[in-house]
Formats: sequence, structure tokens, C-alpha cells
Amino acid sequence: MSLLVVGSVAYDALESPYGKVERTLGGAATYFSVSASFFTHVNLVGIVGDDFDPKDEAILRKRSIDIEGLERKEGKCFFWAGRYSENLNERVTLVTDLNVFAEFKPRLPEKYRNSEFVFLANIAPDLQSDVLHQVKGTPKLVAMDTMNYWIERTNADLRETLGHVDILMINDSETRQLSSEHNLLRAAKHIFKMGPSTLVVKRGEYGAMLVDKNGVFSVPAFPLEEPHDPTGAGDSFAGGFMGYLAGAGSTSDASLRRAMVYGSVLGSFTVERFGLERLLKLKKSEIHARARHFSKLTQFKL
Amino acid sequence: MSLLVVGSVAYDALESPYGKVERTLGGAATYFSVSASFFTHVNLVGIVGDDFDPKDEAILRKRSIDIEGLERKEGKCFFWAGRYSENLNERVTLVTDLNVFAEFKPRLPEKYRNSEFVFLANIAPDLQSDVLHQVKGTPKLVAMDTMNYWIERTNADLRETLGHVDILMINDSETRQLSSEHNLLRAAKHIFKMGPSTLVVKRGEYGAMLVDKNGVFSVPAFPLEEPHDPTGAGDSFAGGFMGYLAGAGSTSDASLRRAMVYGSVLGSFTVERFGLERLLKLKKSEIHARARHFSKLTQFKL
Repeated sequence: MSLLVVGSVAYDALESPYGKVERTLGGAATYFSVSASFFTHVNLVGIVGDDFDPKDEAILRKRSIDIEGLERKEGKCFFWAGRYSENLNERVTLVTDLNVFAEFKPRLPEKYRNSEFVFLANIAPDLQSDVLHQVKGTPKLVAMDTMNYWIERTNADLRETLGHVDILMINDSETRQLSSEHNLLRAAKHIFKMGPSTLVVKRGEYGAMLVDKNGVFSVPAFPLEEPHDPTGAGDSFAGGFMGYLAGAGSTSDASLRRAMVYGSVLGSFTVERFGLERLLKLKKSEIHARARHFSKLTQFKL
Repeated sequence: MSLLVVGSVAYDALESPYGKVERTLGGAATYFSVSASFFTHVNLVGIVGDDFDPKDEAILRKRSIDIEGLERKEGKCFFWAGRYSENLNERVTLVTDLNVFAEFKPRLPEKYRNSEFVFLANIAPDLQSDVLHQVKGTPKLVAMDTMNYWIERTNADLRETLGHVDILMINDSETRQLSSEHNLLRAAKHIFKMGPSTLVVKRGEYGAMLVDKNGVFSVPAFPLEEPHDPTGAGDSFAGGFMGYLAGAGSTSDASLRRAMVYGSVLGSFTVERFGLERLLKLKKSEIHARARHFSKLTQFKL
């Protein structure tokens, strides 16, 4: 089924103990789309400047990611530069130039408006709401990301958006901040009162956890000896998760579990190399092999 | 098969946002023995003072924990007092009175010397070695715990002990400290060179991870809405883990996976109430029900 994503398309400068890249295609919607494109057709809504490289456009097109919704504007693309600590568990933002992204007003092309699966990447909550108003009818599944900035500064807008969303997909510190609860089960109950019926908590090196009315489902992070660059891990997770569900056209409990695994698979590949490097070389057979590896990692018989 | 544990038997004063207890039976060997006793007969080696309460002795005896190896000495029992932070993720030690434990020289009763499964709880590494010398022949499985204190101060002794141990069972910060590696896979490889063929990393609210030549196996922590007191969680985990293996008489990959689950089950019950309170009321049927719940928490079909 059709999958819509709205979010940032950017250039990143990245630095970690494993290397450095000066300028590479990034942004939440990019990682999301590339990851999801292994499972389904993706409709991308974002904004880029006139420095958007035709080679990068080709990368997206080649993967059957529809970019009719990728607005071109005079000016420069969103640019982010960051440096990771020795153990990759901390990062410093060196540059955030919003550029054309500061004027982003998502407009859905007509053919996107029937999307059945919708992912609202991390943008201002009022823009996320605006996107939902443009979607016709009630999508089968709406998921969203957010961050501390919006939780702190636009809490009322965020609450409004949350009222129209099925799945909230955030990290543990955001979960705790939004709910004012340290315990994740109690945090989930708080968040369910705000609208979402499902909470997916991304926990970095500790994996991910889904909480809904059926209970809790946990997936560990894939153990890697030498992750190079965590950038885009969470958005790749979201792309694998939503891509799998849209491809399967299902939101059953069994599908959600598999989606958690495929999300973890895509996130784990992303961090193996810098930027999109690993994802762009990835084969479907590698995705399925790693998903089976997740079975080995977690399965037991009583 | 017979399971031997050597470690502390103590009295604890505990304080958390959920309450306070002035003096309750604790110590690593106690939590371990009580947890393991659900699966197998336990031989306990430890030391207590003349203030050891006959009621507490009865608690151990009643569970078919053999305490012939529990030495009585003039003086007082090891006493520990601690206070947990609001979210239970930090603790302050208020009192550590080693008392008779300072003079602990483990002596195995003759009938303990054929133990096939051995757990060396967190005590000085030279004492751990000394215990292994008293065991006849080669046990089927030897596991040990340790802590930052021994890693820092008696590293040579610790290395000597590690050379004779199959499973090292420690937390993540200890794993990183011992191996000088942040990445747990690389840390495991370092530790394998020291002797153990298996590393079990206890990760608190993030569960536990086993690494051996077959790869990695992960179990999440059981999600609890209101854990009361984390004291003894790690030792209960170890008791469930080793108790299950000794009861099954097996160290196969499938058994190790089940042992990880039963360890997690016992650890999760312990933290529900203060001290041993929950374990002493626990029924076998509850253990098996929670183990099945762990399946629900982690299992998926591709």
C-alpha cells in the first residue's frame, strides 16, 4: 500500500572516530524513504534548495521513491554538521543551517492524498497536523516522530497532533520528557491518553520496544563490532518499520512484531558505514538474512 | 545436579521511594540460593555472625538449601545499608560493615566437593580461586561474578581466577572496565582470551545478553510498572540461571537460552518487593507463567 513520508532532506557533514565526510545526502525523510523503499513505493514530501545535486535526486528516483512532493526553492538545502564521541554514544552539533527548510510548508501532490500509511518525521507539530489535514479520509496507519525541542516549545501543538496519530515513535529520553514518567510502562499509559494507541521507543544500543494494548514487544539492537556512524539510525528504523507494514498492508500484532525486526535490521545496516553508504549498497537478500539473524539473537524454546 | 554457591550472607537496610526496611536477610549467596532452589538443591558456603537470626536460618533450610557450609563466627553478620534514587537507577551506600565477612575463608564441607555446577558470587578473587581448588575434579560448569573493586585492586588475582572459569557474569560497566572496550562484542572477545568461554552481561532495565562462540543471545528485562527495590536482582538472575542449568543438568545452547530467561524471571520477581519478600512467596507456577510471558515479549515469526 502507498506510504507517505514528510520530513527533512538535508546535507550532512559527519565526523566519528571511524572517519569523516564533508557533505553527504541526509535528513530524516531521506533515510526513511531509502529504508522503506526496500519494501514498498514511497511518496516523499520535503524541501530542497538549488544546491540539491542531480546525482542525489537520481539516487532517490532510482529506488522508485516518488519525489513529486519534493519542493525546490531558491536558496540552500538544510545543512547539519555533527561530531560523535569515541564510543559513538554522544554527539556534538557543530552546524545547523535550516536554510530553505525554515520555510517548509508541506504540500501534498494530489496523487499522494490517498496514502494509506503516513509517517510524519521530526518537524514542527503544526506542520505535521497540516499534513494530516491534506490526507483524504482516514489512513490505515499514521505514525510520527518528534523531539525535545517540540516537547518543550510547542507542547500544545504537539498534543493536538498526537490526538490524530496511531503510533508515536521516539527515543527513551523523549518518552520520559513527554510523559513526565521515568518508567516506560507508565510513560506509555500517559501517552496513550494523548491519542496514540501504540508507542515505539527507540533505545539505541539497547534496541527498541513496542507497547500497545496487547502488551510489550522488545527487540535488541543488532550487535555490531564496529558501527561507524549512528546518523539516520532512528529514521532508518522508522523506514524499515513503516515500509514493512505498508508493503504487507497489515497492522496485525504479528506484522507489528515483524516491522520492529525489519526496522531494527535497517537501522543496524545504516550505522555500519557513514551516511547512506551502506543502505545504497544493500540487497534484499541481506535484509532477510539479518532478520533471520535476529531470530537467532532472541528466540528460545521453553 | 548439585549446585554450589560461595558468597555473602548479610543483613541489609534498604530505602527506596517505595518504602524502607531496617534489617532484612540479604547478601549475594542468599538471593542466589533462594532463586536457584526453585530448580535444584543448593549447597551454600558463606559466613554469619552470632546475630544470625534462627528464623532466617529456617528460611534457608525450609527450601532445601544445604547450609552445612554456612560458617558461624563470633561477631556480627555482614551489614549493608543503601538508598535508591527516585527512579531506582542510582544508589548510595550508607553503611558497609564487613564484620565477620572480613575474615571469610571459604571451606567446603566434604559432601560439597563433588558439586558439578559452581557459582562464585562477588568475593575476593583469591578466595574464588581457593574454592575451585577445593572442588574435586572438573565441574561441569563454573560461573563467577566480580565487581569494579576487584578489577581495580586485585587484577592479577582476578586474571588467575578467570583462567579457571567457564562463564563470567557481570554488568555492562564492569564488562567495559575489565576489557577496556566500550563495544560489548569486542569486550567479549577480550574476556574470552582471559579464560571464560561465555560472557553474560547484566544490563539492569535493559535485560541481559549472553555472548559465546555461537554468537549473541539477548533477553529484555521484564517490564514492570512499579519495581520497588533492585537489591539482589543480579544475584537472583544468577541463581535462576545456574539453578535452571543445574536442574536440567545441561549446558547446551538451548539450555543456556532458557537459563537466561529463568534468570530474568527470578530477577524480575525480586525487584517487585523489598529484599527477599517476593521470592519467599513465589510459586513455581508463577515462574513458569512469567517465562511464557517472556516468549510473548520477544517472539516473532518472519
